[in-house]
Amino acid sequence: MTVPVERWAEQVRAGDVRAASRAITAIENHAPEAEDLLRLLFPHTGRAYLTGVTGAPGTGKSTLVDRLAAFHRKSQEQVGVIAVDPTSPYSGGAILGDRIRMQGHAGDTGTFIRSMATRGFLGGLARATAEVALLLDAAGKKHVLIETVGVGQDEIDIVRLADCVLVVLVPGLGDDIQNMKAGLMEIGDIFVLNKADREGADRLEQQLLAMLSLVMPRDGWHPPVVRTVATENKGIEELALAVKEFQRHFETSGERKRKHVEHWKNRLVELLESRLIERALGGPGGQARLTDLAGEVAERKKDPFTAVNEILKRSGLDH
Amino acid sequence: MTVPVERWAEQVRAGDVRAASRAITAIENHAPEAEDLLRLLFPHTGRAYLTGVTGAPGTGKSTLVDRLAAFHRKSQEQVGVIAVDPTSPYSGGAILGDRIRMQGHAGDTGTFIRSMATRGFLGGLARATAEVALLLDAAGKKHVLIETVGVGQDEIDIVRLADCVLVVLVPGLGDDIQNMKAGLMEIGDIFVLNKADREGADRLEQQLLAMLSLVMPRDGWHPPVVRTVATENKGIEELALAVKEFQRHFETSGERKRKHVEHWKNRLVELLESRLIERALGGPGGQARLTDLAGEVAERKKDPFTAVNEILKRSGLDH
Repeated sequence: MTVPVERWAEQVRAGDVRAASRAITAIENHAPEAEDLLRLLFPHTGRAYLTGVTGAPGTGKSTLVDRLAAFHRKSQEQVGVIAVDPTSPYSGGAILGDRIRMQGHAGDTGTFIRSMATRGFLGGLARATAEVALLLDAAGKKHVLIETVGVGQDEIDIVRLADCVLVVLVPGLGDDIQNMKAGLMEIGDIFVLNKADREGADRLEQQLLAMLSLVMPRDGWHPPVVRTVATENKGIEELALAVKEFQRHFETSGERKRKHVEHWKNRLVELLESRLIERALGGPGGQARLTDLAGEVAERKKDPFTAVNEILKRSGLDH
Repeated sequence: MTVPVERWAEQVRAGDVRAASRAITAIENHAPEAEDLLRLLFPHTGRAYLTGVTGAPGTGKSTLVDRLAAFHRKSQEQVGVIAVDPTSPYSGGAILGDRIRMQGHAGDTGTFIRSMATRGFLGGLARATAEVALLLDAAGKKHVLIETVGVGQDEIDIVRLADCVLVVLVPGLGDDIQNMKAGLMEIGDIFVLNKADREGADRLEQQLLAMLSLVMPRDGWHPPVVRTVATENKGIEELALAVKEFQRHFETSGERKRKHVEHWKNRLVELLESRLIERALGGPGGQARLTDLAGEVAERKKDPFTAVNEILKRSGLDH
């Protein structure tokens, strides 16, 4: 903390792992210096390619991300990995499994890995993930892989950050196409059929292709199905090529730019919200007053709209 | 819309289905009259008991909710059902399946059913669900059943509204305990083992009980496992009794009140956010300016923090 923020930003840009780790902690804790740092780093971002990887638990996403990272490292391209577990709001820390799995990269300074879990409230995780992705972008990571467990709205918000979304499925996990969430079907740019050596893989692929044939192509892109066996490093190169193909397609079509504008609209709204809430409820006694008002509302002594007006008035935001 | 809001509120309280439906549409659309209506209804709320029902797709939640509703109706108690599907952000409307399934209650004015899907952005669904629950509460529904598909953060936020949370599992869906989300394990007040006539039910129950024996009881409550076969109406009475038992337990311990205060804290923050965002971005040209700024940020012509400061300044919220 004694390092001036300008120096800190330089260290991050130079690929200093400790500086980046400290910065991520600052982002997670919503520390004031995180904003200063991101402001300095921002002009140096926009070069990384973000790939989101999502799917049900047990589909082997972690191994897949691991192998994709190793594949890019073979060409000396720098990789950042963000592993997000929003379904574990109570664990409040890094995921042990990720830490263990990533040991293979531990000696490699070209790969930066960070696990994040939900903390705080109200969309904080998507914000933090977006900011960590920016940071890794500024640190020169050419590929940023965002791995997220599950299929809820929060995960969808997170993978929407990505330029390209991989949806991972495996045979025999009960996630037959008929059980698959409509949302997942529509956010997938590429479908990965992992553990493709298992029984039922052909059937799942046929179901998937049948389903995809019904989906309108976006801007001429038909989401392909890529078969992998991540544990045996099979199909990883084909997958990386499919991502590259997708990237080429959308950079020509202008869709990527449109997506980025949409992303920044949402991010600006989030930033506005957290700024304004800080103003309304920050400062000494702010949380205690909120608790008191909530108690009055719970007892029906006051309605919630009147309570909110009182907070706005008190913080001078009511004009 | 030509009905004055006072009259509308009276109609809702009297159990008028059309008035309630129109009110829910107003809530979903964030129409200004929704707030006036809820303010008038608020003093008449706080009497309903909210039960949240969650679990993976394919666990038979809908049938279970259907049977629970029918069970309560036998004692002439009024029931409201809110079916939420946050994983379908693209469907933007009611879920056909629900509509069809609920036909059994169609002629029964004591049961009110509404499907909701995600629309808008940023936590809007939990807000809308909470407001619809208030409305049904004011309309005299003694039981409000909130059914939500899936297990993400958004669903967790939604079921947290409930006084009692039922987590539904079935044998053979691949959701072995080891794959089960930690979050779900911790929000369940009662675990429902549905389709309990299927192979694997005993094993799943044993796994579940073993897992639950490791969880610290909250305020002396040990979450029970109730076996049901909802399609055959088996175990429904036992489930309703377990819910009643839970209700009794927590009304004595004071936990319910604590939970309500916590709920209202979150709700007040959400209300504040939407109020402030409306001030910052509402009005003519607000959205267009946001899009322009997002474009500048996407092109790295401006950093997001500067963009947000410009919005705050323009809307007079920057002092």
